[in-house]
Amino acid sequence: MLFAMAEKIILDCDPGHDDAIAILLAHGSPNIELLGVTTVVGNQTIEKVTRNALAVARVIGMTDVPFARGAHRPLVREVEVAESIHGESGLDGPVLPEPTIELDSRHAVDFIIDTVMSNEPGTVSLVPTGALTNLALAVRKEPRIAQRVKQVVMMGGGVNVGNWNATSEFNIVIDPEAAHIVINESWPLTMVGIDVTHDALATEEVAASIAAVGTGPARFVGELLEFFGATYLEAQGFEHPPVHDPCAVAYLIDPTVMETAKVPLDVELTGSITLGMTVADFRAPAPADCTTQVARSIDVPKFWGMIVDALERIGEPKL
Amino acid sequence: MLFAMAEKIILDCDPGHDDAIAILLAHGSPNIELLGVTTVVGNQTIEKVTRNALAVARVIGMTDVPFARGAHRPLVREVEVAESIHGESGLDGPVLPEPTIELDSRHAVDFIIDTVMSNEPGTVSLVPTGALTNLALAVRKEPRIAQRVKQVVMMGGGVNVGNWNATSEFNIVIDPEAAHIVINESWPLTMVGIDVTHDALATEEVAASIAAVGTGPARFVGELLEFFGATYLEAQGFEHPPVHDPCAVAYLIDPTVMETAKVPLDVELTGSITLGMTVADFRAPAPADCTTQVARSIDVPKFWGMIVDALERIGEPKL
Amino acid sequence: MLFAMAEKIILDCDPGHDDAIAILLAHGSPNIELLGVTTVVGNQTIEKVTRNALAVARVIGMTDVPFARGAHRPLVREVEVAESIHGESGLDGPVLPEPTIELDSRHAVDFIIDTVMSNEPGTVSLVPTGALTNLALAVRKEPRIAQRVKQVVMMGGGVNVGNWNATSEFNIVIDPEAAHIVINESWPLTMVGIDVTHDALATEEVAASIAAVGTGPARFVGELLEFFGATYLEAQGFEHPPVHDPCAVAYLIDPTVMETAKVPLDVELTGSITLGMTVADFRAPAPADCTTQVARSIDVPKFWGMIVDALERIGEPKL
Amino acid sequence: MLFAMAEKIILDCDPGHDDAIAILLAHGSPNIELLGVTTVVGNQTIEKVTRNALAVARVIGMTDVPFARGAHRPLVREVEVAESIHGESGLDGPVLPEPTIELDSRHAVDFIIDTVMSNEPGTVSLVPTGALTNLALAVRKEPRIAQRVKQVVMMGGGVNVGNWNATSEFNIVIDPEAAHIVINESWPLTMVGIDVTHDALATEEVAASIAAVGTGPARFVGELLEFFGATYLEAQGFEHPPVHDPCAVAYLIDPTVMETAKVPLDVELTGSITLGMTVADFRAPAPADCTTQVARSIDVPKFWGMIVDALERIGEPKL
Repeated sequence: MLFAMAEKIILDCDPGHDDAIAILLAHGSPNIELLGVTTVVGNQTIEKVTRNALAVARVIGMTDVPFARGAHRPLVREVEVAESIHGESGLDGPVLPEPTIELDSRHAVDFIIDTVMSNEPGTVSLVPTGALTNLALAVRKEPRIAQRVKQVVMMGGGVNVGNWNATSEFNIVIDPEAAHIVINESWPLTMVGIDVTHDALATEEVAASIAAVGTGPARFVGELLEFFGATYLEAQGFEHPPVHDPCAVAYLIDPTVMETAKVPLDVELTGSITLGMTVADFRAPAPADCTTQVARSIDVPKFWGMIVDALERIGEPKL
Repeated sequence: MLFAMAEKIILDCDPGHDDAIAILLAHGSPNIELLGVTTVVGNQTIEKVTRNALAVARVIGMTDVPFARGAHRPLVREVEVAESIHGESGLDGPVLPEPTIELDSRHAVDFIIDTVMSNEPGTVSLVPTGALTNLALAVRKEPRIAQRVKQVVMMGGGVNVGNWNATSEFNIVIDPEAAHIVINESWPLTMVGIDVTHDALATEEVAASIAAVGTGPARFVGELLEFFGATYLEAQGFEHPPVHDPCAVAYLIDPTVMETAKVPLDVELTGSITLGMTVADFRAPAPADCTTQVARSIDVPKFWGMIVDALERIGEPKL
Repeated sequence: MLFAMAEKIILDCDPGHDDAIAILLAHGSPNIELLGVTTVVGNQTIEKVTRNALAVARVIGMTDVPFARGAHRPLVREVEVAESIHGESGLDGPVLPEPTIELDSRHAVDFIIDTVMSNEPGTVSLVPTGALTNLALAVRKEPRIAQRVKQVVMMGGGVNVGNWNATSEFNIVIDPEAAHIVINESWPLTMVGIDVTHDALATEEVAASIAAVGTGPARFVGELLEFFGATYLEAQGFEHPPVHDPCAVAYLIDPTVMETAKVPLDVELTGSITLGMTVADFRAPAPADCTTQVARSIDVPKFWGMIVDALERIGEPKL
Repeated sequence: MLFAMAEKIILDCDPGHDDAIAILLAHGSPNIELLGVTTVVGNQTIEKVTRNALAVARVIGMTDVPFARGAHRPLVREVEVAESIHGESGLDGPVLPEPTIELDSRHAVDFIIDTVMSNEPGTVSLVPTGALTNLALAVRKEPRIAQRVKQVVMMGGGVNVGNWNATSEFNIVIDPEAAHIVINESWPLTMVGIDVTHDALATEEVAASIAAVGTGPARFVGELLEFFGATYLEAQGFEHPPVHDPCAVAYLIDPTVMETAKVPLDVELTGSITLGMTVADFRAPAPADCTTQVARSIDVPKFWGMIVDALERIGEPKL
């Protein structure tokens, strides 16, 4: 059962540990109507992340949502995966079940276009949590979606924080041209960057509240966070892992989970040491026609409450 | 009637005076089986070049070849058209008839993918004579076409010659990222650049031999060349206009019309004064696995002979 | 009379309102032994800023400190001045007296080299408050100064703040190659950036405490701040003007006026929207051999106290 | 004894096999008044190339020409030497004698400035045959030399030919910012690039005519060419080595040894695959105020005749 005002979204992702939790959050929230899940090369190859997405669907009992496979490589740059964070499979840690649902026959790009064009204008939001390759290809193939989507809420980039180089975040660095396309399009866009998601840490307390749900999906999330915590400590020195991707979904569930600021946003494409930087220009108040905003802070307890709530609603799916 | 060995091609173009002649050459040659014509923003907006393509089809009596509209803008850069050369309509000079055929319902990107995937592997050649946006989108959406096309023969770029800046040619400069994608793909690619097409000049002698055909299409070509000659003189100081695009088609009709050299080829994406340069590295013999070659010279009389021959075969179409 | 432990410095500047106050602070502080003032193109042309420096010397009664003129233009880029902030003269506002002292016959580059090489190793600090052209030329001409200076304390750049573009500060943007040279040299370097100096605001309270000194130089500073305040409000929307350059001198007077952090620092030279960004990489603890640090905060009352103290020590010079 | 109209030059070089021959040619020609030799990091470290220059002076009996040491590294980039071509010493092959003359006490930059400023305006030509670091530093420190030198005749760069990357030549690539400075200055500049010097090949016939001189210096040149020929064959596949640097001197001896063309010239600083390219814009006739020209061809027999003539004039110096 969906709430009257549930947000229709397409989740475009590259699972990935935090992507898996984003799928789960979108699936388990009554405020979200998940129209589809599309995959994109990023944390691992397109084959691996697509298989991971389908496996997650089985774990959490999603059977009625279409999944469509997307881009196998970035627009211009060579493939670069995040094995140091997500392991060889892209979702190392838990034992993954064999997927039971079939992929949609369409390419993610066409799935996005068809879904946006066949729903009422201004009703579908796009929620990319990986590289922006699919969205870039979609809006270049069918420019009318730029006017027709409600908004884009992306996890990626950051305001004055980088992880893949000193200034830039992985999702942007691996396909900066795609990010440039998406961020400079005319649709309303909210960037949920790592300056904010670095606060969404899976502490012991968080892990305990998830474990307390006591279901299979909750144990699955626990295993994800255990692996993710170990690699984030090893690779980037984090005491607790930041769980980026569900933050973008959380904003769709309830925008008050974040403070945001309207600001002109752009992507650096030629910098020697700043390639892929998402540049927010805070020197002056944003002009009236500014289409971009950035998250500035997140209500961390409310965010984790959403995750626990989604797990409880999902319950113990029949496998 | 087609020859047994006619080359199956998709012509991807932005008419444009020389594109119009390329369509005509492909249509009129028995060595070419024209599977379709796709359009791309370039010499003018996608609306204008698409309308021009359809109008050319009517002038030369093409009724059985599908036309599909493609990209409305370059991947990353803003739209930049060549009004100084092709006029406000993109095909200024002759009076254009209203088109009589309908566009294919598919986007050029899907038309290309479907056509390549539904023909036998290794039988379809792609012949882009404008920006490489459509081909880039197609091969990123469906990577299998890179192995399945026979070859790409592109008009664009140049070896050590530029026209839109000191080092670079218009088709590449307006969408350098697309050119980078296409030229670095694994398919066999032949670049017919302006170092060669600058020899394919429409002299008075050429104009006379075309006029001698005495048909409506021949008069149409005459009017195209008259306008094109005036703008090329004004904008770039050419005494006679270089007729670039049909050179790529000519190579498909008979590869002996050109001398070619195998050489590693790449596209400059970040240069301040060399943006869009097609860089051929002649410092050492091309490695065995080199997939790119460049035209080095053209047999000009043979080339113009092909144009006249095509006009004669086309004859006087019923309008 | 100098304190036993007075810091020997060369102040390299482009007066400029805040540069003028930096000269005054260096001159008036007993903790500073001002070995010389060198000028560099920046806020205005080299002719104007050099004249301004000499005029300031007369206003504050400096007669025994050598002044040497430096670079007339940036290394690679064209001259770009900050007339919107400092006016046509570079020091608009007060009426400037005719200079009474003569320039040193040497170029600033040679003055810097000679002074560093003729003092004991590790005793001379360089304090650039404009573009880094002179320091870059000096260390390329005489590399031994990199080991021989005590430290470089520069006003310029910023951590995650820009003023001349979204990410970058004027002193760096106008000669990014020089900044790259200086920041990547082996000498210990402290960057006092606009993220810190934007706190050193000349409020009404500050203006009142300066006015209370009641001398000619204090009135001169008051007039400088009045003009500077008006242009900063107009050009960048500041309610009170940030007085950047003396902050670097303040650090030499008493390092406890600032908190600093050791961090790898570099300068972006090729970014389309980040040219001249000073990139501090805070992703991991600074390595042991890191030679760069950045100011993180300033004790604003202590800073303004230094200015007032310097004015009081300078008193009423005989003109 | 000098001819009345002998050209006053400063040779700025990084010996280097072909630099050594350039020194010899300048010394042995009655049309050249060699005011000094300055050295610059390039083919090898500044220590090695300076020692090599002094050793060459001894071999050919130069005792009255000042030598000044210059830049130890490029402006912005790290040091990169050409050991694959010139060997570990920078002048591998012959046994070098210990130098007997002392270096001038001045830095090359000051030597150049002093010499240009103390001679009549318009009488001194600068002849750089290595990286342009010294000239760039000199003209930034003393801008008046730009108006005062007669001309700059540089060996380096190339029109549509590269050796260190596909588009660019070693002398430019190792310090592109310096080349940008020198080439964009207001002085008249002639570029003798590798498109021309690749014709100045030391064939067996050339080697024989040099050997026929029969002196110590001639044997020295023979040994240089033997080593140089071996490395050029090995590293770049040349059957006979191109002897670049004396070509620039040859142009000073007799400009008719080359055909030249006036053309706007610039240097690419940000290209990913074209860094350091010398871009000559031949799209339109050079404007009247164009200060740059490029060599287009060389009279090879006349060039080698100059070398043999210089060797004969030098004769058998007393060591």
